[in-house]
Amino acid sequence: MGIALGDNRYGKAEVRLVRVDRDGERHDLTDLTVSVALAGDLDAVHLSGDNAHVLPTDSQKNTVYAFAADGVGEIEDFGLRLARHFVDSQPAIRRARVELAQHGWRRIELPGGPAPHSFVRTGDGTRTATVGYDGTGAEVVSGLTDLTVCNSTGSEFWGFARDRYTTLPETTDRILATAVDARWRHAGTAGTDWAESHAAVRRLLLAAFAETYSYSLQQTLYAMGERVLAGRGELAEIRLALPNKHHFAVDLAPFGLPGADGVYHAADRPYGLIEGTVARDDLPPAIGLAW
Amino acid sequence: MGIALGDNRYGKAEVRLVRVDRDGERHDLTDLTVSVALAGDLDAVHLSGDNAHVLPTDSQKNTVYAFAADGVGEIEDFGLRLARHFVDSQPAIRRARVELAQHGWRRIELPGGPAPHSFVRTGDGTRTATVGYDGTGAEVVSGLTDLTVCNSTGSEFWGFARDRYTTLPETTDRILATAVDARWRHAGTAGTDWAESHAAVRRLLLAAFAETYSYSLQQTLYAMGERVLAGRGELAEIRLALPNKHHFAVDLAPFGLPGADGVYHAADRPYGLIEGTVARDDLPPAIGLAW
Amino acid sequence: MGIALGDNRYGKAEVRLVRVDRDGERHDLTDLTVSVALAGDLDAVHLSGDNAHVLPTDSQKNTVYAFAADGVGEIEDFGLRLARHFVDSQPAIRRARVELAQHGWRRIELPGGPAPHSFVRTGDGTRTATVGYDGTGAEVVSGLTDLTVCNSTGSEFWGFARDRYTTLPETTDRILATAVDARWRHAGTAGTDWAESHAAVRRLLLAAFAETYSYSLQQTLYAMGERVLAGRGELAEIRLALPNKHHFAVDLAPFGLPGADGVYHAADRPYGLIEGTVARDDLPPAIGLAW
Amino acid sequence: MGIALGDNRYGKAEVRLVRVDRDGERHDLTDLTVSVALAGDLDAVHLSGDNAHVLPTDSQKNTVYAFAADGVGEIEDFGLRLARHFVDSQPAIRRARVELAQHGWRRIELPGGPAPHSFVRTGDGTRTATVGYDGTGAEVVSGLTDLTVCNSTGSEFWGFARDRYTTLPETTDRILATAVDARWRHAGTAGTDWAESHAAVRRLLLAAFAETYSYSLQQTLYAMGERVLAGRGELAEIRLALPNKHHFAVDLAPFGLPGADGVYHAADRPYGLIEGTVARDDLPPAIGLAW
Repeated sequence: MGIALGDNRYGKAEVRLVRVDRDGERHDLTDLTVSVALAGDLDAVHLSGDNAHVLPTDSQKNTVYAFAADGVGEIEDFGLRLARHFVDSQPAIRRARVELAQHGWRRIELPGGPAPHSFVRTGDGTRTATVGYDGTGAEVVSGLTDLTVCNSTGSEFWGFARDRYTTLPETTDRILATAVDARWRHAGTAGTDWAESHAAVRRLLLAAFAETYSYSLQQTLYAMGERVLAGRGELAEIRLALPNKHHFAVDLAPFGLPGADGVYHAADRPYGLIEGTVARDDLPPAIGLAW
Repeated sequence: MGIALGDNRYGKAEVRLVRVDRDGERHDLTDLTVSVALAGDLDAVHLSGDNAHVLPTDSQKNTVYAFAADGVGEIEDFGLRLARHFVDSQPAIRRARVELAQHGWRRIELPGGPAPHSFVRTGDGTRTATVGYDGTGAEVVSGLTDLTVCNSTGSEFWGFARDRYTTLPETTDRILATAVDARWRHAGTAGTDWAESHAAVRRLLLAAFAETYSYSLQQTLYAMGERVLAGRGELAEIRLALPNKHHFAVDLAPFGLPGADGVYHAADRPYGLIEGTVARDDLPPAIGLAW
Repeated sequence: MGIALGDNRYGKAEVRLVRVDRDGERHDLTDLTVSVALAGDLDAVHLSGDNAHVLPTDSQKNTVYAFAADGVGEIEDFGLRLARHFVDSQPAIRRARVELAQHGWRRIELPGGPAPHSFVRTGDGTRTATVGYDGTGAEVVSGLTDLTVCNSTGSEFWGFARDRYTTLPETTDRILATAVDARWRHAGTAGTDWAESHAAVRRLLLAAFAETYSYSLQQTLYAMGERVLAGRGELAEIRLALPNKHHFAVDLAPFGLPGADGVYHAADRPYGLIEGTVARDDLPPAIGLAW
Repeated sequence: MGIALGDNRYGKAEVRLVRVDRDGERHDLTDLTVSVALAGDLDAVHLSGDNAHVLPTDSQKNTVYAFAADGVGEIEDFGLRLARHFVDSQPAIRRARVELAQHGWRRIELPGGPAPHSFVRTGDGTRTATVGYDGTGAEVVSGLTDLTVCNSTGSEFWGFARDRYTTLPETTDRILATAVDARWRHAGTAGTDWAESHAAVRRLLLAAFAETYSYSLQQTLYAMGERVLAGRGELAEIRLALPNKHHFAVDLAPFGLPGADGVYHAADRPYGLIEGTVARDDLPPAIGLAW
């Protein structure tokens, strides 16, 4: 009977790394969660438990810490260094994938100016990167997650398809809120100012969300993706997943407040989920190392 | 400039459905979380906000509830009914994907026997299913998640690759613990007793985990997958994701307890993550509707 | 100006301890999360940073592990050993409070019987204990949490107070579901078979929930507490916190299913929260060391 | 036998309320989670299921929404309005406690200035308030939670008590990180500018954390509390709970990097937990309605 091993990978997940860079009294803080996944010639370990080709996930964790010894820099670069190291130094390993999330911190503001080595966590979006490398090519996907945004007007929803299960009334004014989960693939891996590129994409996403008069969350999604690609020539593709965080207007009439409005119930579940890709059609598609 | 819409889908996520079936005093409880994702001819809504092809996610939610009116049955069947309905009834929709999780309940045991309509939540593994349909073919993936298991011995780890970052000592006796996340694809969608099949796969996974003397978690993963496919002819493929939930033996010697052992620190992060597929090689691969 | 230090305590929280007891091939597993909080003569450390009275929280963690070297036993006993140790061995410490949660495991069932050293996590309620000691007296509170239960009938709610904001219809048949969070104080700390007592309380709670025909969740709460105290003479008091996990019947009439029922939406938030104490009135009240 | 009902309360928890205030194009957003708990003459409902004294938790939820119809204002005021309403309008209710959390949003910045009705969630600390009222007196506790801060130097820990379980080395330079959970009681409820007071306390907490050269987290806690009370005459008491979020320096010597430093592992569990109160000693203590 033909039973065989298929695709597989292994690695260390969620290594929590904090790096402090000191310049006298003034420090900088880098706070990352790093996950490594390796694939390659790993049949023996699955079929017989022979670990000769298995670099322990503990060693992968150590490598993440050791590579931080001389600085982390931008997460895309740090991921590339790690991915290349694993494939280029381990004969059995053919592909590496490194996922990184950078947790934001900013300096505490004191009356005399920003504190030199005291920080407060920000919570308005986590910067992410995923890097893939197969010994020949590398692929970099940057991203952000947990960026929750809301338009309190400028959103309609009507003219939709109806069936026997449709009870939703049409609306010409609703709250549109979502938690942006966006990832964008760079056309290449050389010459990009990752920090500048990321900050620009973030600004474009926020601006497109705020400035798009919306007839559906899909329209807003496409507008956000198109704005990013139109503005950033270094990018090939962007994927967005936008949960529609429903806000239901509370009917206040039963409480003797017939004309009142402006009060909403923010629901947890269920939620809409809108997912889509916007891509340049004149570029080669992804190799698939970093998605 | 060539910027275009790529893959996209939309739907309602995490509809919380509880169904009570009554047979006199004796009730049965079905507790599901259902997510729907639809794809098809949806360019217009992205490009211009024209919703004519968009069945509201609210209607999708209503459909989940309405279809439960005459009973839910097995989640694979319920998912197939829903997926087929959306594609077959909505001209613009070409593909539907329905994800279902069934939360376990069992009857409360009373001195006089099982209670007729009182239940307690179980927590030893959630049954899942994902169903895909494209108007022609359907694909069913069953699964389970959150099944945490532990072997307190019978696990070694040595003979692994070493590099300059390797400090892990070899061991011939360790705790092996993981939270099983498994999904298996059925070769077909007709004629399967889904409940019997699921119960059997669960038993096979647990038995293979318990009975495999392990030199690596990869070996255990393959043994689990092989055991399932060898025992269940209706299945084509199984994918497993096994976090290695590390338990570190506490060195008690510094506390004046030099010979003592049996005490472990259960770590949260980082953790190993072992992912792999075991498949029949004499069957056509997945269409990809339900993964 | 009169600014002064008030109540304070410190300790190590959420020590994750797993203990394996070996009897040949057959093992037993104990899986705990332990938190320690100490109070006493700690003014100096707050006012000037003088740590002379501060046993490090790292030492507290080590103590938890070291005390497990010769076995854990019942969590109430383990907590008492720890609490007494800290107060009796540290001159500056006057009070200790130890919180313990025991995560459930049971043996994996194999065709030949229960596996000797392979286990699966249960998820139907976590056993807890909190122990307080002040150098003279000790107090033990046992408990359980995360025990989710549901009556699919046998619950009414009507005849309630109404005001201008009341829109809730009365009902003579509803689902009653809650996640039991219960803690009960033992009248003494000696001579109790903690395991037997805990198992009995759990059975009484489940039976009272199932067997009480309910006109309000408050009534069910009191019935559960009374049943426990009436059945267990070793207990002085029980406190229950019962979230009312609302299940709303879905109106299926708009979908052309006018007579259909049995379909519910399980809501996340908001939820009712019913909290109450049932106590013997012929016993001294709690010293307050373990609540 | 003497079994009796003790302390009890009930209410609706986690009502999710969003209020939009419109001034032409320019909107303001208020996003709250509100929980209500009521106590009073509630014996009958516990003992016999008689609901005549029970205002449904559904009505409490409606009240929260209805009271938002004419604006929310500061959460302390909104809580006071609600607490007074329940006690003053329901004859059976003697005490009300309202907990409020305000989720932060700020305007999206566009090239032309702040967006008029587009917002992004902030994540650097949630403002909270708890209000108690018993028909005579009211008590207000303001607070903040989830404010994570870090000093990358300026923290030592040595000279601590040692026992046989102590292995922790002394240090004269460590990372000090915590997630501030602070609540402070106002001496009165009239005449306070709640928003100004809250912003000032937040600044004082951050400044004291950043500016205190620390020999222990207890010292930092007291410094934070003292700074707040010294600076804000309207406050009577402050309670702080500070988890010590341990950052362990990674020893890089085994990787051939003997002099390297600045790399830390951020641990999840266990963590230290430091809790303390700082209070004016020339003021009456809390009635206990709002803690």
